[in-house]
Amino acid sequence: MYAIAIHGGAGELSRQALSGEREAHYRDGLAQALDLGYEVLERGGTSLDAVTVAVRSLEDNPLFNAGRGASLTREGVAELDAALMEGHTLRAGAVAAVRHVKNPIELARRVMDKSRHVLLVAAGAEEFALEEGLTLVPNTYFRTPERQAELDALRSGRPASELIPSTQGTVGAVALDAAGNLAAATSTGGMSNKRPGRVGDSPIVGAGTYARNGACAVSATGHGEYFMRIVAAHHACAAVEYRRLTVQDALRETLGRLRELGGSGGLIAVDSAGRIAMDFNTQGMFRAARDSAGQRQIVI
Amino acid sequence: MYAIAIHGGAGELSRQALSGEREAHYRDGLAQALDLGYEVLERGGTSLDAVTVAVRSLEDNPLFNAGRGASLTREGVAELDAALMEGHTLRAGAVAAVRHVKNPIELARRVMDKSRHVLLVAAGAEEFALEEGLTLVPNTYFRTPERQAELDALRSGRPASELIPSTQGTVGAVALDAAGNLAAATSTGGMSNKRPGRVGDSPIVGAGTYARNGACAVSATGHGEYFMRIVAAHHACAAVEYRRLTVQDALRETLGRLRELGGSGGLIAVDSAGRIAMDFNTQGMFRAARDSAGQRQIVI
Repeated sequence: MYAIAIHGGAGELSRQALSGEREAHYRDGLAQALDLGYEVLERGGTSLDAVTVAVRSLEDNPLFNAGRGASLTREGVAELDAALMEGHTLRAGAVAAVRHVKNPIELARRVMDKSRHVLLVAAGAEEFALEEGLTLVPNTYFRTPERQAELDALRSGRPASELIPSTQGTVGAVALDAAGNLAAATSTGGMSNKRPGRVGDSPIVGAGTYARNGACAVSATGHGEYFMRIVAAHHACAAVEYRRLTVQDALRETLGRLRELGGSGGLIAVDSAGRIAMDFNTQGMFRAARDSAGQRQIVI
Repeated sequence: MYAIAIHGGAGELSRQALSGEREAHYRDGLAQALDLGYEVLERGGTSLDAVTVAVRSLEDNPLFNAGRGASLTREGVAELDAALMEGHTLRAGAVAAVRHVKNPIELARRVMDKSRHVLLVAAGAEEFALEEGLTLVPNTYFRTPERQAELDALRSGRPASELIPSTQGTVGAVALDAAGNLAAATSTGGMSNKRPGRVGDSPIVGAGTYARNGACAVSATGHGEYFMRIVAAHHACAAVEYRRLTVQDALRETLGRLRELGGSGGLIAVDSAGRIAMDFNTQGMFRAARDSAGQRQIVI
């Protein structure tokens, strides 16, 4: 049994933002990332490689809030965060507030594989990226006209959801491989109009990203501050491990705890048996799942 | 019932580093921070104020690895991290990789009280500090000859513990106030000889710092990367809340999980009944506790 699930953000979706043609592009983007990840699993690759590949594909796609097409800070700059984790070793790597790394998830992977550390931020993280020979790009690479319009709307008090589907977008993937190992990965540009230096839940091991064999792998999307305060991804994993909740119930209960604080967003998870759960308390969540039992779904 | 516990780091302590006179200074520093925090509780103040005051005192004391006297990066610069959290609202504030904020725990408090965010890092965090009118100091303010010697020793392969007591030092406090509310705070210079931009567990809500009424308040010290991977503080709180472990057993079990990965360090915790636990798997941990039942202890 092997399985992968991905998300491309949760939030309020207006009809205007999601025209037929635009919706088709989102579906295509999700399908591409899903299948790239699935192919890794199919040929016996690791769940860690599968989530890395899927998230990198979503980072490269300007429609999603990660890598190219990321949300912008109040100063109009893209600042990117990413994390990944593997469930059998509990190894993890993360980066936050980087501005020039083309694929933040690749840098997070290098932090995991090549450094003694778990989390590197800002200029120190980019120094490491250069040492590792990763591609650095000018910040303008990340900025799309849609995100600039979203920022302009927020600054002038108009709701951003008229212009672009997901203001709480973040991309992520969770997977179980044929060897029975779990992995999770998340990448984001964070909240539109955020203060420079603001870091949300995505790159925080336990908050937006967590994986532990015997429990589950989780990736979150939504209003990051709330996910941080309830340590959402770890909360869901602990519920599966210690309280014997199903992944479905663990996500539901985690969203309930989020709602108590007034937070909104979504979570995806997969457990050691390949059971996938995808849940949210927003209007919608871009999501997709595929497993070796033949399931393949793409839902907006 | 009200209670406070503090720590000043866990690690390997050599006889040389801990001469009689030096040990007395450490005891004095712990006593001062403990009593400052306790006095806040005694006059009916909040646990959040108590832990803030106690940690600020340890930041100002050059003997401890936080604020003045912080460990240095491999480039010889102090980079500071801090977080705090209150248990009845789950509000939290944190900063990481700041270089000029005299009291990082004060800045974390401002992030909690005055921003929409939980975590600010690097230059963006210092911009916020300036907006809030906090004191900024040159980086040389933080650097002590002892920490420079520690860094030189590590660079040349000599064990740093010959020179200074705790290479895994970090300071922290947990408290329960008379209103029954919990709070936790942690502040650190991080790991000596660390890569610039490296962030450990201290400012990560769930890893090095967590507080939740009905569970407990936790602050950690030690090899941060391991605490991050097991989301140590949240793990301990979840063990109290859902598995009904005592705080003592919850810390023991968390340290067991840490040891499985090869990690070392210590944790302090207080629960809603004012029960204090302080545990570690290193040679020693600077720690102190005081409660309204008359307990007052300072242990090295």
